Amino acid sequence: MSNAMNEAVITMAHGSGGRAMQELLDSLFLPLFSNPALDEREDQARLPVETLARAGDRLAFSTDSYVIDPIFFPGGDIGKLAVCGTVNDVAVGGAQPLYLSCGFILEEGLPLTDLERIVRSMAETARAAGVQIVTGDTKVVQRGAADKVFINTAGIGAIPAGLAWGVSQIRPGDRLIVSGTLGDHGATILNLREQLGLEAGLSSDCAVLTPLIAPLRDIPGVRALRDATRGGVTAILHEFAQGSGFGVEISEQSLPVKEVVRGVCELLGLEPLNFANEGKLVIAVAPEAEQAVLDSLHSHPLGRDAVTIGSVTERASVRLNGIFGTSRLLDLPHSEPLPRIC
Amino acid sequence: MSNAMNEAVITMAHGSGGRAMQELLDSLFLPLFSNPALDEREDQARLPVETLARAGDRLAFSTDSYVIDPIFFPGGDIGKLAVCGTVNDVAVGGAQPLYLSCGFILEEGLPLTDLERIVRSMAETARAAGVQIVTGDTKVVQRGAADKVFINTAGIGAIPAGLAWGVSQIRPGDRLIVSGTLGDHGATILNLREQLGLEAGLSSDCAVLTPLIAPLRDIPGVRALRDATRGGVTAILHEFAQGSGFGVEISEQSLPVKEVVRGVCELLGLEPLNFANEGKLVIAVAPEAEQAVLDSLHSHPLGRDAVTIGSVTERASVRLNGIFGTSRLLDLPHSEPLPRIC
Repeated sequence: MSNAMNEAVITMAHGSGGRAMQELLDSLFLPLFSNPALDEREDQARLPVETLARAGDRLAFSTDSYVIDPIFFPGGDIGKLAVCGTVNDVAVGGAQPLYLSCGFILEEGLPLTDLERIVRSMAETARAAGVQIVTGDTKVVQRGAADKVFINTAGIGAIPAGLAWGVSQIRPGDRLIVSGTLGDHGATILNLREQLGLEAGLSSDCAVLTPLIAPLRDIPGVRALRDATRGGVTAILHEFAQGSGFGVEISEQSLPVKEVVRGVCELLGLEPLNFANEGKLVIAVAPEAEQAVLDSLHSHPLGRDAVTIGSVTERASVRLNGIFGTSRLLDLPHSEPLPRIC
Repeated sequence: MSNAMNEAVITMAHGSGGRAMQELLDSLFLPLFSNPALDEREDQARLPVETLARAGDRLAFSTDSYVIDPIFFPGGDIGKLAVCGTVNDVAVGGAQPLYLSCGFILEEGLPLTDLERIVRSMAETARAAGVQIVTGDTKVVQRGAADKVFINTAGIGAIPAGLAWGVSQIRPGDRLIVSGTLGDHGATILNLREQLGLEAGLSSDCAVLTPLIAPLRDIPGVRALRDATRGGVTAILHEFAQGSGFGVEISEQSLPVKEVVRGVCELLGLEPLNFANEGKLVIAVAPEAEQAVLDSLHSHPLGRDAVTIGSVTERASVRLNGIFGTSRLLDLPHSEPLPRIC
């Protein structure tokens, strides 16, 4: 469809259940996402329960809607993000991600070339992650009733029998590890939106984390994983504290933050700990598992900057120990520094 | 939260991953949707594969986004619709619907009372349908970047072993049955939007159809079911024809349409066959199963107007036989009569 598409845009008819919608499905979504369940073209994907049962004894199910602005950015786009984000939300429970649904809400007037770029990006990211997009939906709203494109994905995976990662497993003395530098995604989007002109070196960390997560299943003593997206590492630390009933203490000096990200933060008086990431784990591990987890993370390019940033405390508070020996409570902000970050 | 909520509205902070979002989850979504998987508050719902395996050998998975305008209408609201629509998409495959995800995209400024009404409606509809909302997400976009509220749901069910409903099962000679009057939902929304003033007797048919569908599993000769939403019965007839490689022929005289719906159609020169329904099945059945299926449908209030409207033909076309013996091709319209119908 490349030639006719150059100047073509989404119209209300593309969301109508009529011929225009069928043509969009046939020419774009179905060929790019193609897999046996989707190609059956029933109202629901039909997937063997046996495939799930072989992979685990619990189904993991998660959803996110993606409303990021802008829809294209260094390191990714809204389509890649919609696959990575939900695959990661499934995987941090210890599950092997298997299937995705996707729902598009398109604004009338969206260039078809933009949509094609997004759909290709989703298809490539899903293929690389070993995940199939098996069912979907497209709605169109009139100009001004949505901003370009919103995508929802829901993901299904299977958690291997015996694996019990979760915040309720966290114990005082556990170490807290982050899998890499903090705030890259948030700083990249903020730089674009505020036109700070700091392009060099800024790129979203948007990535599927399954290759980092899967080897951790074989290490006894891993307690809980979360990916630090909206709300940043701060939000995850509060979730760990609230969910376990204990507290956490981290060291400011240990936080891995790229120079350019630190620059964006200082310029705007913001805190990289609160910035969204799209490819970073926060992991709670028993002290005896710390080195094995760090070694495992360091063996993969996505985890080469992994480092211990603190530990779990009996005292139920979230504290940051500063460079000069000061210690302060790390509040969960009322709101994130910037909207539509994911 | 009822008192403080009266004048309160959604702000950007409610979608930020910070405290405001936590408070919204804690005060609204979590208590109303409460169930064991959701209450664990992990990033993914964890559901026993055993529960699925007991209910069937194939998982059914479907998704839809809901962008209907207006969000409240006679017979329902966007929340009820978001549960019914996806539950029905899972159930028409023969599955027992079990779990839903939900993703909200909220416009800054949405009154919290409206959101609460929608969430209550979702919770009640899901409870009545025996379905749990086990995982969710909330995003907020700035005023003007979305229209009030969009909801995505994804649904999971299990298809009993041996059941093989699907368009590929359809054979020439099969009868085509609709479960009740056509176009009620479309006419209701159109009447509101065009201010036709025909309120009396107009109400959306928005309903969970599992009670109609489940007994059909025990009747041999049921070939395929679809719920006739966007694109109406016409779209389903085309799906049946395309998916089976055969054709269909229906009788205009047999079509069950309420007087008031016929009135809306005649006023605007529109076709009730193309109108969206939100609680109507189109069913293809072997001739020997026709009476048993009609009897089963008639035994439930949702199916009391069920009737045979036509049959499957060798000739691969979709035809409407008119009242005066004429016969014409029933084209799939380029687009539906009205946008944002669901």
